[in-house]
Order: sequence, then C-alpha cells, then structure tokens
Amino acid sequence: MSLIFRPLFEKQSSTYTYLLADAKTKEAVIIDAVDQTQQRDIGLIEELGLQLKYIIETHIHADHITSSCPLKQKFTSAKIVLGENNSVACADILIKDGESLSFGSYKINAIATPGHTNGCMSFVIGDKVFSGDSLLIRSCGRCDFQDGSAAKLFDSIQRLFALPEATKVYPAHDYGGRTLSSIWEEKAFNQMIGGGVDKAEFVRRVEAMELSLPAKIHVAVPANQVCGSKIVAHDK
Amino acid sequence: MSLIFRPLFEKQSSTYTYLLADAKTKEAVIIDAVDQTQQRDIGLIEELGLQLKYIIETHIHADHITSSCPLKQKFTSAKIVLGENNSVACADILIKDGESLSFGSYKINAIATPGHTNGCMSFVIGDKVFSGDSLLIRSCGRCDFQDGSAAKLFDSIQRLFALPEATKVYPAHDYGGRTLSSIWEEKAFNQMIGGGVDKAEFVRRVEAMELSLPAKIHVAVPANQVCGSKIVAHDK
Repeated sequence: MSLIFRPLFEKQSSTYTYLLADAKTKEAVIIDAVDQTQQRDIGLIEELGLQLKYIIETHIHADHITSSCPLKQKFTSAKIVLGENNSVACADILIKDGESLSFGSYKINAIATPGHTNGCMSFVIGDKVFSGDSLLIRSCGRCDFQDGSAAKLFDSIQRLFALPEATKVYPAHDYGGRTLSSIWEEKAFNQMIGGGVDKAEFVRRVEAMELSLPAKIHVAVPANQVCGSKIVAHDK
Repeated sequence: MSLIFRPLFEKQSSTYTYLLADAKTKEAVIIDAVDQTQQRDIGLIEELGLQLKYIIETHIHADHITSSCPLKQKFTSAKIVLGENNSVACADILIKDGESLSFGSYKINAIATPGHTNGCMSFVIGDKVFSGDSLLIRSCGRCDFQDGSAAKLFDSIQRLFALPEATKVYPAHDYGGRTLSSIWEEKAFNQMIGGGVDKAEFVRRVEAMELSLPAKIHVAVPANQVCGSKIVAHDK
C-alpha cells in the first residue's frame, strides 16, 4: 500500500476532509478542508512530510468556510481546484468533467455531478469516489439554493451509480457517524434514490425535504467564493 | 480486498465503533459498540447481510454505555468478548493475552495493554491495531480510575510500539476528528510518549493530566460490567 489516506472530521458542520498522498513521492491532495480544523490539517501534513499539490473543493459549501486560502498561504506551491461551473476568483484550476490530475502515481478523475449546486464535482481516485454533497450515505444533498436542481442531481447520481459497485463512497458529510459506503449499498439502500427510484419520484422526494437554510449560508457562500480568504471570512 | 471495514463514530462521547467482516463468508465482528448508535449499527449489519460472530470490547468504558447486550439479543449467535482482567458477568469469552479469534479468513490477535484500566486489551487484525484507550492519536488514556496505572500503560504502549511501524492505529476515541494514525507516527509524534520519552517522564505526564471524571462514569461502569444490559443502563 503506497497510498496514505486520512479521513478527517469537523464536528460542528459534520464535514469530512480527506487527505491523500503517495507514500513514496509524498505528493498530496486535500479535499474539502474546513477553516476551523486548519491547524490540525496543517500539522498533520507537516508531520507526515507531505508536499501539498492540490487543494480540492467538491463545491462551494454553504455550511462551513473552506481553509483553501490559508492552506495555500502555508503550502505555496499548492493549487486550488474547483469545478468549472463555479464563480470563484481564487481557483487556480477550474476542472472540467472528464479531466484528471495526478499526485505521485495516483490519478484523480473529475466527474461533473451538478444538482446540489450547479458547480458540484465528484472525484474518483482508484477504488474511491469523493462524492461531495451529491451522494451522501443513504441520502443526497438538498437542491434548493446555489442553482440546485433535483433533476440534474438524479442524472449526476446515475453517473456515480455507473462506477464499479465495489467503489467506496466518501461523502463530504455524514450526520450519523458513518464514514463510508459503497456504490452497491447506495444503489440498494439509499433512501432518496436507492432501489430503482425514478426521476419523478426522486424530484418529489428532494422537493419534500423541508430543511431550514444552513445557519452559515450568508457568510459561508461568499467566503467560499474567494476560497476562505480572510477578507470576508467573518460574521458581519 | 475481501475485508469489509467500517469505522463508525458516536458524537457525544467521541467514540469509534469498528465493524469488520469477511466479504466472502460474511462473518463479522464489532468493536466498542455504543448504546446510542445501536440502531444504526444493527441496520448496517443487516443491510450488509453480515453474521455477527464477536462483540468485542477493548475495555469497560467509563464515558458511554456499550450496546453489547442489545446486539447479542439481536444477533443471538454472537459472543461477547472482553479481556480476562475484567469483572463482568456477561462476557462469553474472557480472552487472554496472546490468544486469537477468527472471522472468515481473518484472525484477531489479543494483546493485553493494561494501564488505562487494568482490563484493557488491544486487538490486531492484519495491518490494523484497535488500541482502545491505551494508545490514542497523539495521546493516551488517563490512568486515574478502574485500577489504572501509568507505569503499566507505559509498558503496554511499548508492546504496541513493537508492532510493524506501518500498522494503522484505530483508537476508541478521538476528540479532534482524526480517524486513524500509524505506529511510526505515534512513536514519533505522540505528545505523551513519542520521541523516546522514558517511563518516569511518561508517568509524570499522565499524572499531570488533571481531568475531571467522565460525566457518565457512575452509570457507565456498572452498566458496562453487565455489557449494557437494560437492567442498569439508565440514569438514576
């Protein structure tokens, strides 16, 4: 095994941050890093002697502020990566569906999965998919802001369901303490789309979610549109 | 890969529960299951079609109540496993240092690691060690109740440090959202015992911890001495 893989959890927003690295070359990527845990993450990257190459966001989050900008200030050769359908001044790479990046001997394949937001991107690395808020464990992201679309999300999840069934699913959140799932499990048991639910029923279920807005949305979205830069990353 | 491996998190006590299974035979073990998340764990075991063989506790916990008893009521052929140095009426197997159990093609090796409590046991499965509260990520368990001993814990951690350095460390808790470590990292960076700290200094550091008692200790310890049986598993 030459892949270093560290799932990390931020309790307040129940966000998973993923650190991956090639154990030989030490090149590393971090996915969905959170401002509140940036010291933990910086400390771990330094202790493991990693060279951070890519700071990846699956999307512009509404529930927490990213630490992309502070991480880049610390690891100055790292590039910030977001899907192309995002209005962000700070991204170094606006990745397109089907494009790939590499770290050491590992490849990251981008799959556009719009729906939760229009800019959502999932990333496949080997037998793992980092599905952001597109596919959650037994659930999926809401579609009622940031140009969300339940119909698009249905199509996006079908693309994820076309991955090998043994593919491990690592979402951006879980609110029940689960840390991973698999494509076959979600095809079978996902409560929004599993068991062969059709698009009309899926859209009906998403529209019936009845969730209040994330507490931090009015701070987090603008802050994340500049990758968590300190200029705007505070409450007004 | 024919090992199913699911780390699961219980937020209130920051406890990790680990579900492992042989993907072919479906025989499974669960380590340090928590009462509050028993429905989640039962649901997952059922969805994955697993046959729960062993319900393992690394020790008698003081911060949460185990779901061993309810799990056994549900999966009636499962055996409850605890280290031999525990006063528990409910254990089916009081395992000794050096003994092993198996599930499918996987072997579980018990290593006595007294110190946090006198009955603490760690379990090695392949390249993973489930270290309970003996070795935490960058830390270790306290030693001020349940016949704890910092001197014994020092010797116990030396036994864990004798495992291959690439061994992945999965503790019973992490309070900072980290999900795993490795033996080499803890040898290098553990703040209590890393970097070649000697026994006298380790004991001094453990004794200087100054922690208040776990909120649930007076309920959890007696409840866990009967494996979370409903008779005592409630506040008085």
